[in-house]
Amino acid sequence: MSKSAVVLLSGGMDSAVCLALAKRDGFALHALSVDYGQRHAVELEAARELARWAGVESHTVLPLDLRPLGGSSLTDLSMPVPKGGQHEGVPNTYVPARNTLLLGLALALSEVKGARSVFIGVNAVDYSGYPDCRPEFIATFQELANVATKAATEEGNPVEIHAPLIVLSKAEIVRLGVSLGVPFKQTVSCYDPAEHEGEVVACGMCDSCRIRAKAFLEARVPDPTLYAVRQ
Amino acid sequence: MSKSAVVLLSGGMDSAVCLALAKRDGFALHALSVDYGQRHAVELEAARELARWAGVESHTVLPLDLRPLGGSSLTDLSMPVPKGGQHEGVPNTYVPARNTLLLGLALALSEVKGARSVFIGVNAVDYSGYPDCRPEFIATFQELANVATKAATEEGNPVEIHAPLIVLSKAEIVRLGVSLGVPFKQTVSCYDPAEHEGEVVACGMCDSCRIRAKAFLEARVPDPTLYAVRQ
Repeated sequence: MSKSAVVLLSGGMDSAVCLALAKRDGFALHALSVDYGQRHAVELEAARELARWAGVESHTVLPLDLRPLGGSSLTDLSMPVPKGGQHEGVPNTYVPARNTLLLGLALALSEVKGARSVFIGVNAVDYSGYPDCRPEFIATFQELANVATKAATEEGNPVEIHAPLIVLSKAEIVRLGVSLGVPFKQTVSCYDPAEHEGEVVACGMCDSCRIRAKAFLEARVPDPTLYAVRQ
Repeated sequence: MSKSAVVLLSGGMDSAVCLALAKRDGFALHALSVDYGQRHAVELEAARELARWAGVESHTVLPLDLRPLGGSSLTDLSMPVPKGGQHEGVPNTYVPARNTLLLGLALALSEVKGARSVFIGVNAVDYSGYPDCRPEFIATFQELANVATKAATEEGNPVEIHAPLIVLSKAEIVRLGVSLGVPFKQTVSCYDPAEHEGEVVACGMCDSCRIRAKAFLEARVPDPTLYAVRQ
């Protein structure tokens, strides 16, 4: 049996590069996307296209509606997404406990699929200050995975959590993605995108758009994104 | 502001006792139930009645459909629930990574509600051998909670995970519940219950029924459960 991995695939650029890395490393791929009621649901369509591109064995799209919890501008449409880069501390786009939940779901799927690796595209360099994107969080989740599942405790097969982008700059992620042939045109980063004639149009002003545009600029790679506003 | 707690409330007897303990200890209560596609959905109705009984501030019922993952007889209707107590190791009623996901959701809700405590009714004495019911799992999840959230890392308010039943026997849980006035009649333990004239009828043969019946017997407390079969 070939080695297999669950890859968390949001449809953003980081998860796309993660998917390409796992593919390069010879894993049979099980992509997992979560529909958590995010306003940027076009991400999920991007995830489907990326999964097709990578030739995954399976792609599970799991509904986990976090809107009843509230507390984030990504899931609560009454809260505005911050634009223009002016806020202090962790912004309101933070979704409470999001990566704990995403890794928990990946852990569950890995156990069902018999996969011993989970890939997550978190990044602690050019990011929005989310606590669950830091190396300390990933290391502690690894400890949890070692004691949480039947596969780990009864069969001696704990899952290994891979976060291969965690210490890369966004520009380095772009360059790595280019070297792996990642179709960046198909990835969606914007927190508040629109659609125009079947194309995704990024707002160009949210944190995620600003970080993405800067990354392509610094990497000296043409940015294929359609932005409503270029800053 | 009074202290508040998120209580994971499945509708089973352990979570009911947990709720009663948190109430006795003066917490303002936010109950959280998860509809994960379990076959014993009457549990959710029991959870609603228990929440009313405890006078909770809020009761969130969150849909998290784990059926697309498969891998458990509690969510995959094509897998039979084991009856008669004959199986080795972790039984197929194990839901992969369930308590990781439940605690992750409780962590998210605690952050939204400003609660600094989470109660979970796991028990490592008379249980079915699930790895995520052990003290080691809870201690590691506490470490994760300390680094996972904005509340913990930016505001210095990590959530404390309470698992007050973890070292009690099931008979001790029954006696504790009786002393707290828990309406055990309204709790549902059976993995495969039926309904008859508006009443829940427990199968009497699954692991959960057997453990429950034995607990009442050992506690010398009359068992209010309606069983289809008494063993």
